[in-house]
Amino acid sequence: MVALKLLPASEHERVRTAEGDDDVRLALLADMCRLNALVAVKRAGSGHLGSTFSSLDVVVHLLHSELNVAAVGFQDPSRDVFFSSKGHDVPGLYAALFGLGVIQRERFLRLRRLGGLDGHPDVGVPGIEANSGSLGMGISKGKGIAWAKRHGGLGGRVVVMTGDGELQEGQSWEGLQAAAHERLGGLWVVVDRNELQSDKPTEEILALGAIEAKLASFGWEVASCDGHDHAALRRVFAGFRDGDPAKPKALVAQTVKGSGVSFMEHPVALVEGGGTYRWHAGAPGDEPFERALGELEERVRAGFSALGLAPPELDSVVPEGAAGSLEGEPESGAGTRARVTDEYVVEAYGEALLELGGQHERLVVLDADLASDCRVRAFELAFPDRFVECGIAEQDLVSTAAGLARHGYLPVVNSFASFLASRANEQIYNQASEGTKVVYALHYAGLIPAGPGKSHQSVRDVSLLGALPGTTIVQPGNAEETAALLRWAVEDADGNVALRLAIGPSPRRIELPVSFQVGRGTVLRDGRDAVLVAYGPVLLHEALLASELLAESGDLGLRVVALPWLNRFDADWVAGEVAPFDQIFVLEDHSPVGGLGDGLRRALDGRVLSVLGVEGWPACGTPEEALRFHGLDGASLADRIAARVGMRSVR
Amino acid sequence: MVALKLLPASEHERVRTAEGDDDVRLALLADMCRLNALVAVKRAGSGHLGSTFSSLDVVVHLLHSELNVAAVGFQDPSRDVFFSSKGHDVPGLYAALFGLGVIQRERFLRLRRLGGLDGHPDVGVPGIEANSGSLGMGISKGKGIAWAKRHGGLGGRVVVMTGDGELQEGQSWEGLQAAAHERLGGLWVVVDRNELQSDKPTEEILALGAIEAKLASFGWEVASCDGHDHAALRRVFAGFRDGDPAKPKALVAQTVKGSGVSFMEHPVALVEGGGTYRWHAGAPGDEPFERALGELEERVRAGFSALGLAPPELDSVVPEGAAGSLEGEPESGAGTRARVTDEYVVEAYGEALLELGGQHERLVVLDADLASDCRVRAFELAFPDRFVECGIAEQDLVSTAAGLARHGYLPVVNSFASFLASRANEQIYNQASEGTKVVYALHYAGLIPAGPGKSHQSVRDVSLLGALPGTTIVQPGNAEETAALLRWAVEDADGNVALRLAIGPSPRRIELPVSFQVGRGTVLRDGRDAVLVAYGPVLLHEALLASELLAESGDLGLRVVALPWLNRFDADWVAGEVAPFDQIFVLEDHSPVGGLGDGLRRALDGRVLSVLGVEGWPACGTPEEALRFHGLDGASLADRIAARVGMRSVR
Repeated sequence: MVALKLLPASEHERVRTAEGDDDVRLALLADMCRLNALVAVKRAGSGHLGSTFSSLDVVVHLLHSELNVAAVGFQDPSRDVFFSSKGHDVPGLYAALFGLGVIQRERFLRLRRLGGLDGHPDVGVPGIEANSGSLGMGISKGKGIAWAKRHGGLGGRVVVMTGDGELQEGQSWEGLQAAAHERLGGLWVVVDRNELQSDKPTEEILALGAIEAKLASFGWEVASCDGHDHAALRRVFAGFRDGDPAKPKALVAQTVKGSGVSFMEHPVALVEGGGTYRWHAGAPGDEPFERALGELEERVRAGFSALGLAPPELDSVVPEGAAGSLEGEPESGAGTRARVTDEYVVEAYGEALLELGGQHERLVVLDADLASDCRVRAFELAFPDRFVECGIAEQDLVSTAAGLARHGYLPVVNSFASFLASRANEQIYNQASEGTKVVYALHYAGLIPAGPGKSHQSVRDVSLLGALPGTTIVQPGNAEETAALLRWAVEDADGNVALRLAIGPSPRRIELPVSFQVGRGTVLRDGRDAVLVAYGPVLLHEALLASELLAESGDLGLRVVALPWLNRFDADWVAGEVAPFDQIFVLEDHSPVGGLGDGLRRALDGRVLSVLGVEGWPACGTPEEALRFHGLDGASLADRIAARVGMRSVR
Repeated sequence: MVALKLLPASEHERVRTAEGDDDVRLALLADMCRLNALVAVKRAGSGHLGSTFSSLDVVVHLLHSELNVAAVGFQDPSRDVFFSSKGHDVPGLYAALFGLGVIQRERFLRLRRLGGLDGHPDVGVPGIEANSGSLGMGISKGKGIAWAKRHGGLGGRVVVMTGDGELQEGQSWEGLQAAAHERLGGLWVVVDRNELQSDKPTEEILALGAIEAKLASFGWEVASCDGHDHAALRRVFAGFRDGDPAKPKALVAQTVKGSGVSFMEHPVALVEGGGTYRWHAGAPGDEPFERALGELEERVRAGFSALGLAPPELDSVVPEGAAGSLEGEPESGAGTRARVTDEYVVEAYGEALLELGGQHERLVVLDADLASDCRVRAFELAFPDRFVECGIAEQDLVSTAAGLARHGYLPVVNSFASFLASRANEQIYNQASEGTKVVYALHYAGLIPAGPGKSHQSVRDVSLLGALPGTTIVQPGNAEETAALLRWAVEDADGNVALRLAIGPSPRRIELPVSFQVGRGTVLRDGRDAVLVAYGPVLLHEALLASELLAESGDLGLRVVALPWLNRFDADWVAGEVAPFDQIFVLEDHSPVGGLGDGLRRALDGRVLSVLGVEGWPACGTPEEALRFHGLDGASLADRIAARVGMRSVR
């Protein structure tokens, strides 16, 4: 176990109040925050260091030199508001807030832990001004806040940090145009132009081109400078203060991803990674951690010396002992899960996709800058001409797939469930309405991993796709079932398939039969007293555990059924295997609203409660035509109700 | 009843094959399409003439002069693909396809009718290449099609028509950047730059500024010309054909909204309308219809003469006799509903909002360019400083509201349910996760009016918001209840409220008590044999009709209950008023999945089927922490199941 140590808030205070060159002081404070953020991420087992480090000079400069929050606090209505729209750089902001005494030591050390600091920003944490983590919303939110300040006659600017890759989200441009139209001169945007997105250059994934020209064409006052040069930052911000009060301002801060740790810095790190950048997400392993810590500590000590201060004293920190300190971990922070098995359904997905790619020449894979996490990199390398990288733009991703599907291709669309099912929801509806077929791979579905926080946890996706005509939603329980369901989706399904996938390692291997039947589940463990229906490796494990515990200690026989079909059921199977139980439990890796439980109730409960609603696609026509078409006009309803209660037709 | 007449396909054929100047011919064909589109819209009782007329010269030029579909047909894989992304200009395209013989006469005359031509484009209609009507998706779809053509080695360009206001949708910029990155030289975009959006100038609603500069900064080859000048269009398209094969091309076509009918033309019509343009949507009344028809017929006759052709013969058309030929009708085409009452819940909403605006100085109204339809214009005029116009950008709309709510305002957010609940779904989730309160007014919810087609009909919105923690979804049944529920939402609700509103006139007045109780419904008509629970004026009317029919002809007593609470129920009331019936029917103005029925089953069915899922916001932490927090780890599950079946705790 490596030794962890922290620069306490008192050391930050010592630097903050020292005499000497302001820019030296700010650079030192940024390095101190880098050191503390590194330790927090190492202790948490996951987090995003690359862009934490690229943005930290700007963050420190704003909090310590430009904005008024260190003086007036985070409750003053006239405070300057700063937040990061990308959000995954939040360990740096936490470190800065810790250094300012806004976040307490104990909480700072509970990064990505229950009751600690969320993996992405949440307003429940002191000093956090906005929830983020799902990209592209920040400029719009900042616009709302700037509007509120102006309307309320309050002081304070609003400064929003965005990633460069984040500008690929269309909402960014909605916010940019609207803020200019509203003449919100009090809104500033800082683009952390570190030139890399998840693990590749922006210009390779989806070129941003001349960002400055784009921002200017959208009506913004634009500046650009070295984002690690405090003198330059000072000049730019001073210029903004003196700028056109009717124009919002944008700084394109030229930064270095991984800045401050030699081997994490772009472009060196990108070259060493053979074209992919490995320090975007995940805690470093012990050896690189110690090297990084050593470099930062040396720089911090030099900084103290340069300011004529006595050397800093570092507190030692008890390591968390997490089993999950996996090097080069994915975006999701999946590795914080103790590795009980080596099975990842998402890896089985990537392998199966590669195999299917060799067999189906019309199969096209689409990605939204999560190729590593979604395990589609192997497909990209094998079939580069059938891999479409859409960047961080889920709406474009889905509508592109719609166009491909209309012209004879079978698109397999990849993103995280939380983004794909919600942000591109209307686009999925539009695609489905054309009667084409698309396979939506909803990665990182469900509650776990829980470290990144609610922006990334997807517990609504089944509800978001459930009312879509002709779409089947499935979640496999093990690797073989993943491959089999993907093959079924590609080769046999007659409409859209949404394939929910857990991203982390399976906590136990779920044993399932080799073949499956549509709409049917598998009894994993028998029991006579009650039945528990569950899905996905994470909760199937917990379901089996519950059944084992109940059998051991209470002599209750809880049957556990794995049901990968979340909205499509074989009526005979349900009648035979589920309905006979007096007590039926459904375990959801999802909200209790709109998931498998609601679906099973619909399948089970035709006896008492009948729903008469708009089945299929809503018909176009006059009101009378549409109501009649769907059997929802008074006369049709009377007939349907009469038939249901055993009367003859009323007509 | 006015006389309707049509220029048959044979007359188009005569012009198409005539000798003479190409540009004269194309201008004449466009006017012929204008005339036919005008008649189809008049007959349908609704439709969008303003942008049908602005875009028609480009449409005709493309189909008759530039693209190969008239020659090769709409099935050839190497055909040029043309479609309109905005979609509401489709009457013009239908008219052009009718003129080409692709759409038959009988179907052309069934605009917005069941089995006829959808109010917005649908691929079920010959010659329609993409479903649209929900804005901003077209460039992405065109990108997918252009990719498919290139990958397949097929010929044919892809030409996408967009509105100018439509460029406010962020997805447009996602598609633009991605097409440039993919070097899709075969993709062309034509911006119908008619300078108006729903009923006001783009530069007033949300300024587009220098569109050409923006498009160029996004890497496109850009041209601009008079969109009614066929010689100019020919030059631009020839230039595109000879242009950089690695660059997609955009034409900003300077057009006149309402072009071809003097009093519908911008800017005259805007001035006459006192700053709002009245010909965006809706069929003209009889007098303006006849004037418009007269103008167009005169021009068509002159065109025939100019080409040396014998005068055209027009077929007379039987009018539909629709009661709904309302002048200056809203976007929705709501007026196709026979006006049985004068009650519109949406008007009651607008009045109540105005009243609340006077009482609550922190109430802010946000709009996405549907101010007339959503009846928020009166609020805008009364409280211009608390009205935030976000343009056609629903994601920005919601995140702006989130920023306002965090800083002490109560935003009331307006758009159509189909757009707001789906396109801004992730933004709503993010806003709600900050613990603030926003009122979402979901206009045009449900099946009716059905004329605009599936892009506008919202039968999924309850499912899309149902799994959002702390959000109450309501739909009032009459005007007074609308005002009362809005007041409750603004003054009393402790979290987000989604207020579903029907946009058309209520087919009958629903009598409800003056006051309401949260989670409780009202018995509208008693009956002992079964109960039918319904909501909203449209289906409450049908429910009452069904009950009346059943009582008359079958002696079945069907109790009808109006329940405005769609996801929040008073348990005692449900137990007393609904549960005792052996036959419970739920009538949904929604899909049967994810609506009131599923909610009532959850409320009624705790006895047999229990769902154990992720309640509330997903917790951040390690897997073990998060599972334990939600009671979903094996040990907690064992306890919960044991308690449910009456065992003591297993621990």
